[in-house]
Amino acid sequence: MAVELFNNGKHICLAFYDLVDEEHDHAVQCNQFMIADSGHGALIDPGGNLTYNALLMAMQRYFPSKELVWLLASHPDPDIIASVNKWFVASPCKVLISKLWTRFVPHFTTGRDIQGRIDGIPDEGMEIPLGESRIKAIPAHFMHAEGNFQFYDPVSKILFSGDLGVSLVDHDVAGLPVKDFDAHIPLMEPFHRRYMVSNKILRFWAHMVRQMDIEMIVPQHGQRFVGKAMCNRFIDWIEKMPCGIDLMTQDNYRAP
Amino acid sequence: MAVELFNNGKHICLAFYDLVDEEHDHAVQCNQFMIADSGHGALIDPGGNLTYNALLMAMQRYFPSKELVWLLASHPDPDIIASVNKWFVASPCKVLISKLWTRFVPHFTTGRDIQGRIDGIPDEGMEIPLGESRIKAIPAHFMHAEGNFQFYDPVSKILFSGDLGVSLVDHDVAGLPVKDFDAHIPLMEPFHRRYMVSNKILRFWAHMVRQMDIEMIVPQHGQRFVGKAMCNRFIDWIEKMPCGIDLMTQDNYRAP
Repeated sequence: MAVELFNNGKHICLAFYDLVDEEHDHAVQCNQFMIADSGHGALIDPGGNLTYNALLMAMQRYFPSKELVWLLASHPDPDIIASVNKWFVASPCKVLISKLWTRFVPHFTTGRDIQGRIDGIPDEGMEIPLGESRIKAIPAHFMHAEGNFQFYDPVSKILFSGDLGVSLVDHDVAGLPVKDFDAHIPLMEPFHRRYMVSNKILRFWAHMVRQMDIEMIVPQHGQRFVGKAMCNRFIDWIEKMPCGIDLMTQDNYRAP
Repeated sequence: MAVELFNNGKHICLAFYDLVDEEHDHAVQCNQFMIADSGHGALIDPGGNLTYNALLMAMQRYFPSKELVWLLASHPDPDIIASVNKWFVASPCKVLISKLWTRFVPHFTTGRDIQGRIDGIPDEGMEIPLGESRIKAIPAHFMHAEGNFQFYDPVSKILFSGDLGVSLVDHDVAGLPVKDFDAHIPLMEPFHRRYMVSNKILRFWAHMVRQMDIEMIVPQHGQRFVGKAMCNRFIDWIEKMPCGIDLMTQDNYRAP
């Protein structure tokens, strides 16, 4: 069932937490997001082939397929965008993804009907028009992909943070906001230590987002952080974490 | 047309350089590889939906689909493994990929017939039986994916290096060995500076592979390095390159 993150009557943000049955599908739980503004829509990280049918059905309660304008992809992993060929058939949407990956996305497709439908986001980010609003693509390179973006919605003040802030939980827990930050740390820590690339980058990110007006941080797996106090707990925590290459030594690089 | 990299009558290594029409498909050129030993086969980085049909046809000249034992995936990008669902239908093969990605691969699929068919390679690598030979999974984490492997074939002494050593060239050039290393540098340099994660990791890699007996380095895009002298030119060059997070500053992390 969809969770309504924001709704002022003409601008709506929805999150889908239970479209993957991680036990049955042997797949990692993941979240999908929809933003509708004035009858036009965008999907953020719509997922792979496991989530397509349910997401299409849910979306059509808010706008018809022909008004799906954007697929916004934080990076090119299969749980992010492997369903792209189906969305291209079902709607006139375009994909926006880091310009590092525009020529990789066609490998998800049959190669038909893709011309002019995959646009690159420059490294510095961009503003993306949606109805009467504008979504911002925020640089998040190396968290984790080399070309990586988060998406910030200035109307709802939600930061869709991709793989940053992820927790690995069941889909029935994923839909609930984080209540106790300290108790939540063990659900985040192993993932961030191995899949985030370096503390250097986390510090750049923390410095950047402290200057933004953020009410909610919503990652692509697991639970969201609601309210400025809880968002700041996350920012303060992640800024100090050594991860990725910080922890690698020559011992990790030996032929078996 | 397939290029025969090695053939001693019972152990054969093939490379496919021209299955993607990068102009027509708006997709990055990429290479696929097949190893056959004693009538059993493995595909390395078989690619996405653009390469499946041609690769299936070519492979069957060497062994039937029912003897396709492994899909060996360096990492989970679409040009590496987006065709996995088709291979699962066409053969009894299993996927071997970093254990970081085993629960992401099902998102490429419909979720049917995947149980027990996606196995994780531990961070330290492993030996993979194929016919009477054994392929080695060599740690290549953060070059570029967080969980990343290269595949070394001790019979042919070929290192299939994934995204390391990549050059961005047309498919008619990709099939030729590198002749002039200095002239080749501009075809490699921009990619490695942005898609490789850090010089720290490149130095670990160089130290590791100098202790291996390598006659050929074969990347997943572009041209291969043939002979110990040319392989050493590449190792010496990449070892000194700053890249990825080494080059990032706070200026790269500002909201637009």
